[in-house]
Amino acid sequence: MKNFKILHRDGNARAGRLTTPHGVIETPNFNPVGTQGVVKALGPRELKEIGVQIILGNTYHLMLRPGAELIEKFGGLHQFMGWDKPIMTDSGGFQVFSLGVALEHGSSKVVGRKYQKEESRPRLNKITEEGVIFQSHLDGSKHILTPEKSIEIQRKLGADLIVAFDDHESSKHTKAEMEKSLELTEIWGLRSLKKYNRKNWDGKQLMYGVVHGGTHQDLRIRSAHFTDENFDAISIGGIYGDKKMLCRIVEWVSAEVSEDKPRHLLGIGEVEDLFNGVERGMDFFDCVAPTRRARFGSLYICPENGGNKINSFAMSIRQSRYISDKKPIDPACGCYTCLNFSRAYLRHLYSAGEILYHNLATFHNIYFIVNLMREIRSAILEDSFHKLKFQWLGY
Amino acid sequence: MKNFKILHRDGNARAGRLTTPHGVIETPNFNPVGTQGVVKALGPRELKEIGVQIILGNTYHLMLRPGAELIEKFGGLHQFMGWDKPIMTDSGGFQVFSLGVALEHGSSKVVGRKYQKEESRPRLNKITEEGVIFQSHLDGSKHILTPEKSIEIQRKLGADLIVAFDDHESSKHTKAEMEKSLELTEIWGLRSLKKYNRKNWDGKQLMYGVVHGGTHQDLRIRSAHFTDENFDAISIGGIYGDKKMLCRIVEWVSAEVSEDKPRHLLGIGEVEDLFNGVERGMDFFDCVAPTRRARFGSLYICPENGGNKINSFAMSIRQSRYISDKKPIDPACGCYTCLNFSRAYLRHLYSAGEILYHNLATFHNIYFIVNLMREIRSAILEDSFHKLKFQWLGY
Repeated sequence: MKNFKILHRDGNARAGRLTTPHGVIETPNFNPVGTQGVVKALGPRELKEIGVQIILGNTYHLMLRPGAELIEKFGGLHQFMGWDKPIMTDSGGFQVFSLGVALEHGSSKVVGRKYQKEESRPRLNKITEEGVIFQSHLDGSKHILTPEKSIEIQRKLGADLIVAFDDHESSKHTKAEMEKSLELTEIWGLRSLKKYNRKNWDGKQLMYGVVHGGTHQDLRIRSAHFTDENFDAISIGGIYGDKKMLCRIVEWVSAEVSEDKPRHLLGIGEVEDLFNGVERGMDFFDCVAPTRRARFGSLYICPENGGNKINSFAMSIRQSRYISDKKPIDPACGCYTCLNFSRAYLRHLYSAGEILYHNLATFHNIYFIVNLMREIRSAILEDSFHKLKFQWLGY
Repeated sequence: MKNFKILHRDGNARAGRLTTPHGVIETPNFNPVGTQGVVKALGPRELKEIGVQIILGNTYHLMLRPGAELIEKFGGLHQFMGWDKPIMTDSGGFQVFSLGVALEHGSSKVVGRKYQKEESRPRLNKITEEGVIFQSHLDGSKHILTPEKSIEIQRKLGADLIVAFDDHESSKHTKAEMEKSLELTEIWGLRSLKKYNRKNWDGKQLMYGVVHGGTHQDLRIRSAHFTDENFDAISIGGIYGDKKMLCRIVEWVSAEVSEDKPRHLLGIGEVEDLFNGVERGMDFFDCVAPTRRARFGSLYICPENGGNKINSFAMSIRQSRYISDKKPIDPACGCYTCLNFSRAYLRHLYSAGEILYHNLATFHNIYFIVNLMREIRSAILEDSFHKLKFQWLGY
């Protein structure tokens, strides 16, 4: 892939550089999620101050509100939201999945808090080979998402990196059901490619194919081969199970795809997973964890200040022990929030329901992860990735 | 008053300069309100970027949460919230009034939205000559606020400008009741002064007395004389009625107090009132209008972009006419929000319930008012205040 260069390897971990129409992204890298055309509570200038190089927008949410046509009128998502660095959009597949079998199986976790309960509910979608008919979680209106429509929307949004439309298996599916789902992902992947290659296409967007197959090694390998044959960029979707299973899936896939293509682990971004993904050759990650955690008072701390695997490298600012604590969230952190505000003040803002809490807390959490990725990249370039990983994870 | 210098007069309008321990404030000036130790949705660096010279904190809210003792441990409100420019605190009188007769009379508008209905409710306070016993709107816990306690709390908060503890009349009070309330304000004012002058006092805070008397000229004049005799700074409280009554009250009081003392119109800050107050010799204003309006989608616009007396110089970003509007909120505005974001994007953020909306909208509204005060001050210095006022109000 001519736009992607691997600069250095440390074991299977890679430090690289991906060039896009909106600038270069240094890898490994983490994409903060800007679901509705905004990374929760942060403006573009704060993202730049943090050093964010790319953000991810959600096709499903943006197509419903404010609508892809509106965003296209503004010249794309970059102009609409005032962000001139790279953007990736997803296919919408995961969100429409969350309206369907994930609701039935009580494992939906994306579309609105009212759907997050772990109980079975009637599905809001219907999957055919043509695509997915679904009801909007906002107003119940009916919509259809097909591979062609997903790509068309992603073209209108104007992202630098886009994703082929995919079907999602549920962890409660039988292997036969998973195989069927994988077939659909393959058919839809080819249709996405066809739409992507149409001559009216501007050709500036890089499209990821998505590797599926659940926790089955043979299905993951089949999907890895298919994706590598057809796409210039590889993403891995449908990750579930424990942290060991994540490692296994990434190992199965990494071993089967071309070395010179960028690799994205979709929807993954907790600290331990970032280390494990990078170690196994992944270049990109995205996750709502930093923004969602911030909203609920969970703020990242590094190992020297109490962060570890058990607490997921986070402390809860809601605890009364911080009520008069003059220290910053993480005394080792160099972010604007930690340089200027105490735990006591942040706890006060949280307790008082003040909006500024969300701004300062999200700033810290995004900075923390982006900075961790910078450290990881430096470590790879200095052949000390495993030392850094051991310092953080103890293994 | 040695710390306050009037530099120029244009009619009764004054351009001056007040020196405080945390810096100079150019007058006339507007204090954004930071009720809970934060100006809603904005951090200190954004306030500085806007050019805010002083903010106002609420004694009532801060004494309940996080508590004056906690803030004192941090060295005061400046250190606690990370704001190193001047701060004013109010006396708490207005808030405990809102828990009492204002509830009975259905005119409470300060303490929590659940108390804002225009219907009679049982009062949550009891007023004696000693002070006010009240129940917290947060948890129902009982507290007492006396003149001594209000001043003690304001000392702990460490504000540059503080206010003597005052009683508040209701617009539904008889004149006899108002007179009684005014007597209490006078007694409490003297007790506030006594506490303020105690020898353990650091002497760096400037204390305002509060002129009351409702809409009665004789009571206002009596109160103006009392306040001018006893205090180095004059504030006017208990303003209600229409905009003409506001003008009359300010005229009555301004004519009776020393020219060389700073004058603050408490809780007033809509555009028309700012012009009318300045015209009648007021130097300081504070109001939740810019922050509260922002929260509900009401964003300031100047006359050349449709702002006028009728719409209170504001447009509603909620209107569907802005759904694809590429213009900034106010094309004549030079704030960060207007230089970078469209009405369509702000409307999208508002509709989607995004936190960033509050940050960007509040930034604009505070900037708009602060910038208006800068323009007003320049106009006074150039003897063109009345021309500017006519451009905005048409009278």
